[in-house]
Amino acid sequence: MLEGKFDEASLLKKVIDSIKDSVKLCNFNCSQADGITVQAIDDSRVLLIALKMDPGCFQEFRCDRELVLGLDLESLSKILKQGNNEDFLSLLAEDNPDSLLIVFEDKKKDRISEFSLKLMDIDSDSLAIDEMENDCSITMPAAEFAKVARDFKTMSESLNIVVTKESVKFKADGQIGSGSVIFKPHTDVEHPEQSIKVDVNSPVDLTFGAKYLNDIVKASSLSPSITIKLTDKAPALFEFKLPSGFLRYYLAPKFEDDE
Amino acid sequence: MLEGKFDEASLLKKVIDSIKDSVKLCNFNCSQADGITVQAIDDSRVLLIALKMDPGCFQEFRCDRELVLGLDLESLSKILKQGNNEDFLSLLAEDNPDSLLIVFEDKKKDRISEFSLKLMDIDSDSLAIDEMENDCSITMPAAEFAKVARDFKTMSESLNIVVTKESVKFKADGQIGSGSVIFKPHTDVEHPEQSIKVDVNSPVDLTFGAKYLNDIVKASSLSPSITIKLTDKAPALFEFKLPSGFLRYYLAPKFEDDE
Amino acid sequence: MLEGKFDEASLLKKVIDSIKDSVKLCNFNCSQADGITVQAIDDSRVLLIALKMDPGCFQEFRCDRELVLGLDLESLSKILKQGNNEDFLSLLAEDNPDSLLIVFEDKKKDRISEFSLKLMDIDSDSLAIDEMENDCSITMPAAEFAKVARDFKTMSESLNIVVTKESVKFKADGQIGSGSVIFKPHTDVEHPEQSIKVDVNSPVDLTFGAKYLNDIVKASSLSPSITIKLTDKAPALFEFKLPSGFLRYYLAPKFEDDE
Repeated sequence: MLEGKFDEASLLKKVIDSIKDSVKLCNFNCSQADGITVQAIDDSRVLLIALKMDPGCFQEFRCDRELVLGLDLESLSKILKQGNNEDFLSLLAEDNPDSLLIVFEDKKKDRISEFSLKLMDIDSDSLAIDEMENDCSITMPAAEFAKVARDFKTMSESLNIVVTKESVKFKADGQIGSGSVIFKPHTDVEHPEQSIKVDVNSPVDLTFGAKYLNDIVKASSLSPSITIKLTDKAPALFEFKLPSGFLRYYLAPKFEDDE
Repeated sequence: MLEGKFDEASLLKKVIDSIKDSVKLCNFNCSQADGITVQAIDDSRVLLIALKMDPGCFQEFRCDRELVLGLDLESLSKILKQGNNEDFLSLLAEDNPDSLLIVFEDKKKDRISEFSLKLMDIDSDSLAIDEMENDCSITMPAAEFAKVARDFKTMSESLNIVVTKESVKFKADGQIGSGSVIFKPHTDVEHPEQSIKVDVNSPVDLTFGAKYLNDIVKASSLSPSITIKLTDKAPALFEFKLPSGFLRYYLAPKFEDDE
Repeated sequence: MLEGKFDEASLLKKVIDSIKDSVKLCNFNCSQADGITVQAIDDSRVLLIALKMDPGCFQEFRCDRELVLGLDLESLSKILKQGNNEDFLSLLAEDNPDSLLIVFEDKKKDRISEFSLKLMDIDSDSLAIDEMENDCSITMPAAEFAKVARDFKTMSESLNIVVTKESVKFKADGQIGSGSVIFKPHTDVEHPEQSIKVDVNSPVDLTFGAKYLNDIVKASSLSPSITIKLTDKAPALFEFKLPSGFLRYYLAPKFEDDE
């Protein structure tokens, strides 16, 4: 039996809104130790998404035995829209569930909303993702990165990221011209989430598909900052921290042979 | 001669915006005793709309003899958009009018806007609607009812309302699952318009077309609360109170034979 | 060499947003004496646009020799969207440029964005526009004029302007009826930009195409007031003042033979 109660519905609403345009169907893996975890490949088979909502994300969490809940995220999103952001939100499932029960409770009023969402059998391969040493790591305001990704998408299909000890440079070449944005590392003591931190073992110069970066930044309301880990010729990691856990995206860089 | 002057244009703007998507053409019946009344059946012939703007809705109201003004609500709405919400709004017509004169006066500035709207001959049957005893009556915040109607429309074409002394339950079954929202009667002393009041002579369990409920809740900006009167196997009444008068919708429940 | 630095990117953003729907391609003429001037005819060959951004519009301005920069305004607009309104914005070009360099600097953060926009060869005739005596001149809040132009466009393809010493009257006849808005001259001491000033040498009664007036009022965010100069049987002038310079539109009135 699963009983997971969020103090505020807004967290799950934002998580699902972040990924539902990339992934239509996915499995929620539930366990007492790990809370709810999701691993999915986006429908274009390019972006790997890893979500981990630890028990600490919940006000109350209990999962007697491991459960796999196959969900249509579009339908889940429709139901989540029916609750208010500040409502308590509970996810309830039996041991061999054919549906997930979703309950909103208004904190002030006598209003309870219950929804039963049909579960689906979804094939999925669990991929072992190795934590590896990275060439460099950037932590910067999520909104700043989102603006860069969105702005450059109107110019080009690719975004080039060049990281040195001194700066992070985003570059694009397009039909109408070329552009670049340079950020320098700095520490904002009053607003630490506005700081830009750059750790460099080895400088990198990598290019990514602008479309996928735009899918990733849909999650930028989840966390004030994003951490980007880059390694030459290896998939990059884009991470948004949750109150306890994370939403991660893995995206392979483009190679010169690519268009 | 008709001279009706509203203290604020916003009232008529909201009324017309509430009904113009349901009814394209309708007659405004004007008389000294009743102010302006409208009775119309929506273009799909399902929803009966009854509007009563008593002379008390107006700052000044004078109607020497009874007039019938045949109006295209789409055109009227276009003209009403041209005034500001806080403007004085006057409706003026002669005794055998072929047009309605609509005048906005800005309260602060020296600006007067005048519009002449052509009148039309519109057939309409005046229906006698009997006030009848109801099985139960609900008064609740209009915005809460509007949210339920809008949210469930994404799940199902029908919305089921079950009323008992203890609660009002809205339910829907759809392809993706099922859902319900339960409200319990309560009195909010500080914000009485947030109270939920339920009077039950006999419990009811009725189902309505979600599309029509969504047409009805377009009027929810007119009044902080809505009163819903339900009777088994009889049309339900949905009422929004005006400063003096009302906007009412009558909608027959679906029967089991219905799709 | 051109070096023009705006204290805030917002001014150029608003200017380009005002005209880019009317004119796709145009030449920016740069000189030390006049700053940046543009003269262009809209793509329907009806509206003449004259922009003058004097050196006073810039925090710093230097232009060693006269330059003509052929720009695609759609592309320029895309690039300008990438800066924030409060950023410093610099325009840089060499003496025989094939591209314009556009640099944003965030005032607080260590962020610099650079864009290179390819220049184009654009044919253009420079028209000598004579300053002439006008029959009357109106200065009124830009937002009020914009509302009139937008509102009446839903009623009619033409807007008639009748100016006398006592009032400015905007009128339109359409299929659904007719309308008019009357403004009276007045002085608002506390909010002078809300004043309406009318100078009349000779009353006028002129009719303009509603579509073009709607193109013009896209500039109404540039300035709190608009000045309209009207002369019988001559093109009207609609002027928005810049901090130093102007954006002017010239539009010929419709004649009776016109549809």
